[in-house]
Amino acid sequence: MSAAPVDHLLHLADNALLLGQRNAEWAGHGPILEEDLALANHALDHLGQARLLYQHAAAQINADPQQAQRFAHLQGARVDGGVSEDTLAYFRGAHEFRNFTLLELPHHGPLAGPARQDRDFATTTVRNFLYAALMALWWERLQHSADAQLAGIAAKSLKEVRYHLRHAGDWLVRLGDGTDDSRARAQAALNHLLPYTQEFWIGDAAEAAAVANGTGVALAALKPAWDALVDEAVAEATLKRPADGGYVTQGRHGVHSEHMGFVLAEMQGLAREHPAAVW
Amino acid sequence: MSAAPVDHLLHLADNALLLGQRNAEWAGHGPILEEDLALANHALDHLGQARLLYQHAAAQINADPQQAQRFAHLQGARVDGGVSEDTLAYFRGAHEFRNFTLLELPHHGPLAGPARQDRDFATTTVRNFLYAALMALWWERLQHSADAQLAGIAAKSLKEVRYHLRHAGDWLVRLGDGTDDSRARAQAALNHLLPYTQEFWIGDAAEAAAVANGTGVALAALKPAWDALVDEAVAEATLKRPADGGYVTQGRHGVHSEHMGFVLAEMQGLAREHPAAVW
Repeated sequence: MSAAPVDHLLHLADNALLLGQRNAEWAGHGPILEEDLALANHALDHLGQARLLYQHAAAQINADPQQAQRFAHLQGARVDGGVSEDTLAYFRGAHEFRNFTLLELPHHGPLAGPARQDRDFATTTVRNFLYAALMALWWERLQHSADAQLAGIAAKSLKEVRYHLRHAGDWLVRLGDGTDDSRARAQAALNHLLPYTQEFWIGDAAEAAAVANGTGVALAALKPAWDALVDEAVAEATLKRPADGGYVTQGRHGVHSEHMGFVLAEMQGLAREHPAAVW
Repeated sequence: MSAAPVDHLLHLADNALLLGQRNAEWAGHGPILEEDLALANHALDHLGQARLLYQHAAAQINADPQQAQRFAHLQGARVDGGVSEDTLAYFRGAHEFRNFTLLELPHHGPLAGPARQDRDFATTTVRNFLYAALMALWWERLQHSADAQLAGIAAKSLKEVRYHLRHAGDWLVRLGDGTDDSRARAQAALNHLLPYTQEFWIGDAAEAAAVANGTGVALAALKPAWDALVDEAVAEATLKRPADGGYVTQGRHGVHSEHMGFVLAEMQGLAREHPAAVW
């Protein structure tokens, strides 16, 4: 049985963890109670996906002396004689995270005045839509991965992400086809975030290795279907899709934005302060 | 069919909302991924309970001109010709909230140094345990409320709170019977929080009215059973229960701690900034 490359699993896990962490920041701050609960539920789905992927990655790391050596510097790795989901989430440094840059960005909207600086609901909605559109296609293919455990995670995650996609798409239409203000915010968020999606298609060594052993998918092949999903939703929301272009971020290669350190500090702080606690 | 007094429903709803809000603050900051998810799930249970209770209260307010008049000053009440769950959650002022003071407190531990000032896991655990012990008894009785809708909410909530009680109780034992540090933190949290529970037993006019029309429970009658639950867990955790005493807080009468304004600002900020938004 083939296993997906560790770095490919970490890429998938880090994507889910970072977006889950970001969406969890909305907990208790949503515009209406119903949406507060919905965003929190989606965050839990992503954190649950991340756990399964980290557990799968950790088992492979611990079974392979070369991989184990690579992660032996992590603080948590000493506690229980190997890495765990928690070691991988809480004790890697920013440059060791392989998530798309898109997913680590704060909820700042490009139009946000000082009072809205910390959270812009249109930015959250557009990001969730762009990512869910990718994952709906990606998880669908990964159900047929030669890595049976990854295929199982994909089947479970696909159900979740299809719901996320519908939910974010409905909101995108509601905002784009809403008031002048909500429409301006949605368009600005789309213009701001779309360039970050270019990173989806650039590939990396882990993806190539996953394709080679039948456990992964060449993401570039999904772009036409993704474009169709995005174009359809953007049209229904009466928004305009900006042309592709601009700087191509490199989060999946470990090169992150200035926001990454802050979100990791928030997320990792307690675990790092008490690395051997009895929790 | 009897209906529970509006203020009694708001008391139950506000308790659930405030604790849900506080526990949601842990999202993305837990010590381990598993517990992060558990606390977030419990927060969602509480927010879900709050929604059902606010919806029930709002329907009664809107059906009764005298009650409707009482809440007509709320900003959200103008938007759709009546109050809603969101109006009640987002547009009441601090003095209109009827939750127990215990549930609005931050997660500061009494022993916390500056670095841990914002969240102490022992404080969170002890609070969740003390409240879950009350609600396991309270919801059980409310299943037989003469208010059929409240009885239904109680039956659903009882299942959730029994799990919360077991979860928090397990952690209490793990912390109390753990390291010297975790034991000291658990004992300090217990000493800090137990005086706040005196407010459970003092009653108010809404409780008396609910008892009178068969929709509510006299909480003081639950104290012996609550004491037994607490004593058993404290003994198993090898902690010492401090004697009752100290100031009796009055959150249920609308007299809140200095923390209430901050937690409401966090929770209500976005909704208040855009009271007529198309969300």
